[in-house]
Amino acid sequence: MRYKVIVSYDGTLFDGYQIQKDKRTIQNEIQIALAKLYQKEIKISSSGRTDKGVHAYGQVFSYETEKEIEPYKIKKALNTYLPKDVSIINVNKVDDSFHPRGSIKNKEYVYKINIGTFNPIERNYVYQHGYDLDVKKLKKAAKLFVGTHNFKNFCTNDEEEKKTYVRTVNKISISKKDDIIIISIVGTGFLRYMVRMIIGTMIAYNDGKVDLDNIKFSLDERCPNRTIYKVPSEGLYLMKVTYPQR
Amino acid sequence: MRYKVIVSYDGTLFDGYQIQKDKRTIQNEIQIALAKLYQKEIKISSSGRTDKGVHAYGQVFSYETEKEIEPYKIKKALNTYLPKDVSIINVNKVDDSFHPRGSIKNKEYVYKINIGTFNPIERNYVYQHGYDLDVKKLKKAAKLFVGTHNFKNFCTNDEEEKKTYVRTVNKISISKKDDIIIISIVGTGFLRYMVRMIIGTMIAYNDGKVDLDNIKFSLDERCPNRTIYKVPSEGLYLMKVTYPQR
Repeated sequence: MRYKVIVSYDGTLFDGYQIQKDKRTIQNEIQIALAKLYQKEIKISSSGRTDKGVHAYGQVFSYETEKEIEPYKIKKALNTYLPKDVSIINVNKVDDSFHPRGSIKNKEYVYKINIGTFNPIERNYVYQHGYDLDVKKLKKAAKLFVGTHNFKNFCTNDEEEKKTYVRTVNKISISKKDDIIIISIVGTGFLRYMVRMIIGTMIAYNDGKVDLDNIKFSLDERCPNRTIYKVPSEGLYLMKVTYPQR
Repeated sequence: MRYKVIVSYDGTLFDGYQIQKDKRTIQNEIQIALAKLYQKEIKISSSGRTDKGVHAYGQVFSYETEKEIEPYKIKKALNTYLPKDVSIINVNKVDDSFHPRGSIKNKEYVYKINIGTFNPIERNYVYQHGYDLDVKKLKKAAKLFVGTHNFKNFCTNDEEEKKTYVRTVNKISISKKDDIIIISIVGTGFLRYMVRMIIGTMIAYNDGKVDLDNIKFSLDERCPNRTIYKVPSEGLYLMKVTYPQR
């Protein structure tokens, strides 16, 4: 049978989500905990990776097993085995057609920016930008990214060639409370660094380093220039992965 | 001349505020930074210590020096020398009668409690209590602590005998937003562990482990029993130290 699991983690002390040799990764911690529970190696499939320093409230993974255990018992056991910076939020039995990456309807990322005084307590959880941003300007730039575009210029180039760089951003919302700006981006899928490059470019527009036409052109597949603006990882949270109701 | 400095820090990776041999302490980091700036050893006086794991938004210290430097330059230099989990918020020249402990008018502590699902991202910044608390009950217990009392039963006994255990709590406010309860305690001065024991006792009342008469009696100087309820350090923040206007 197949289980779908929602997991939350603090990315600060991890070298990212995906397993890498001799590195502390979230996937590895989860697989160690599963091995303890089932007394055998179990590989998980996930909705996608997150980079070093990125946090998650609602990462989703699934795994296969022949042994049936009640979901609340799985949750309890895994949380006993996992380190304190990873925590299982929910476990569900799902049918065999479910795949955490293939079945995605929407993914939501949130990015937090502090425009006030440097805050040492939140330094790993909110990007300490240090100077004011104009929410109206950010919204103006954000609008250009909403819709279906070729995001070739808004991703890393250190990966193998992608089949397609076309992605759909459904919504970008921006709110401000005191000195904290919160940006939510919802889309059907994201390329590596795409969220951080979109927000980096929004800030570059705020600062007068690019104009709206530059941004429009960089979303044109014929544009040869990669984006050079990228906000740091510590402000980024994978909030939620949603799947179509069955 | 004398400088008054406001400092904020993340207590997670420190063995508390006060200098101890071979331990990472906030006071030591500040004095290292001051030594770099002034090229000589400078000792600071503080509004009080905070324990291992306790955070601060508005700790206050002062120091003496013969060399005059503009406050904004002191702030900038110290923040260059300090590690990322300690940050100078403000520097001011004060007259020689100012003493960060002796002159205190009020101190405010805030304590944060998560009554919802364990949150790995906030595990070092909000006490992960894990079950519901009744704000009305907390307020009922809190009332008993407001005023001038003998807090001998609400402090550690590993210190030398105090001259007096009498302290005045001016105000306790409790608010709840979603799954987070925030308790603010304002008083003229606090004994070691006093805030954490007051809140631990409020939770013990919520849980039916003590009744209001027990609490009243424990505030009577004739009561021989020390409090055994204490919430952990990670939810505690020294918010603000205020001084009379001169």
